[in-house]
Amino acid sequence: MLVIKVGGSVGIDYDALCDDLARLWHEGQRLVLVHGGSDETNRLAEALGHPPRFVTSPSGHSSRYTDRRTLEIFEMVYCGTANKGLVERLQGRQVNALGLSGLDGRLLQGKRKASIRIIEDGRQKVLRDDWTGTVEQVNAPLLRMLLEHGYLPVVAPLACSEKGEPLNVDGDRAAAAIAVALRAETLLLLSNVPGLLRTFPDEASLIPHIPRQEVESYLDYAQGRMKKKVLGAAEAIEQGVGRVILGDARVHGCVSRALAGAGTVVA
Amino acid sequence: MLVIKVGGSVGIDYDALCDDLARLWHEGQRLVLVHGGSDETNRLAEALGHPPRFVTSPSGHSSRYTDRRTLEIFEMVYCGTANKGLVERLQGRQVNALGLSGLDGRLLQGKRKASIRIIEDGRQKVLRDDWTGTVEQVNAPLLRMLLEHGYLPVVAPLACSEKGEPLNVDGDRAAAAIAVALRAETLLLLSNVPGLLRTFPDEASLIPHIPRQEVESYLDYAQGRMKKKVLGAAEAIEQGVGRVILGDARVHGCVSRALAGAGTVVA
Repeated sequence: MLVIKVGGSVGIDYDALCDDLARLWHEGQRLVLVHGGSDETNRLAEALGHPPRFVTSPSGHSSRYTDRRTLEIFEMVYCGTANKGLVERLQGRQVNALGLSGLDGRLLQGKRKASIRIIEDGRQKVLRDDWTGTVEQVNAPLLRMLLEHGYLPVVAPLACSEKGEPLNVDGDRAAAAIAVALRAETLLLLSNVPGLLRTFPDEASLIPHIPRQEVESYLDYAQGRMKKKVLGAAEAIEQGVGRVILGDARVHGCVSRALAGAGTVVA
Repeated sequence: MLVIKVGGSVGIDYDALCDDLARLWHEGQRLVLVHGGSDETNRLAEALGHPPRFVTSPSGHSSRYTDRRTLEIFEMVYCGTANKGLVERLQGRQVNALGLSGLDGRLLQGKRKASIRIIEDGRQKVLRDDWTGTVEQVNAPLLRMLLEHGYLPVVAPLACSEKGEPLNVDGDRAAAAIAVALRAETLLLLSNVPGLLRTFPDEASLIPHIPRQEVESYLDYAQGRMKKKVLGAAEAIEQGVGRVILGDARVHGCVSRALAGAGTVVA
């Protein structure tokens, strides 16, 4: 079993990605695809006069502040154009893709952070009306049922709270949770960089291999969104996923290349 | 088996609808929900500077012209906020709803009308780049599998063309096709009118009953969107659905009331 997360940043060639996925799928590889959509969400939010607001936690993590309107915009992109764009590309390649979010069938059950602490102008503040959370449980039987019947699940990273509310959750960590739940051999986290870089943004400083016992010590090298990828990698490896690869989604044959060892391999 | 289509017009109380659906579901009634979203799609299209364009066919039917950008906006609402809004309400009522579109798993397979003839300024014209179609086949095994495993399918009326493209299809007729494929006893078409009116918009002129052999002769009473509902009713009845009810979605207990015979009953 292979779980792939592809980011939502500029520079990613989704047609080439789907060519590669379709080839693997037709060869018999079973896989689950998790996707991003952050750049498109930002553009739509600007167009609708509700621009994105990023906040920084006391521990230094940056994340999107998701008020109710932002959650709706997030649904429009993640469950709408981003998810259906991938399903369409896969269907056009004779892969019976089926898109769903973590809200659907409680695929990803999560915990809502009802209030979040942020740092603004050097001071701690508390924000409420935030619709983010973390994945706590994966409905693996639902994914297995779809896979057994020939459907490729394409998952938008929303989770479902205990109360049935949709939550914006991190896609890399959602993919890690899915990989753990399905006991995947490989978790592939694709984005618009070649992998973890020792000195960001120098692509020649790629770290090709991280020993599985030492993932967390590499967190210091991770900048911005890469932090969540390394965190996701650590969570997946700790809970039994065979290997995690941080790969480059901008190149042709990106999945095959990453599976052959290109990028940063955690194993 | 019960198939329900609920429109996307103003005045519909989705919370009350979901209260009623949840009660029926917990009593053991298996059902599929198909939804609309046209009013929200129009509002979003206006907000994004791509206002809706309605066209009239030579036979007098009015429909949305769906260019590629409109299709994307349609996906944002139908697969995004409209679908997930219903899934959220149902999940909040302990119903394990699962939202998907007709593109997903080729749930609704359709035929694209690559070009459409329209009447504009009294003259016939041909429009291309149109992404509408009609449902030709329903993936009933997928719906049955979901229902057997305790999921309530919430269906956004897009179809999947032979080439894997998403198509904007009429929700009432999609619901009729689903009802036929599942051999439903009842198809319930809910909207913001009490049923078929003999003299629209006089609600006192409600037609309470239409004999099953005579549905098409009642098409003359149907105005605007009601035409598609009566067409859908005729298609469903012809192909073995037990009864079709055109009911009012604006009242509390709308599903129960319609099942008890309120509205226009075709049987």
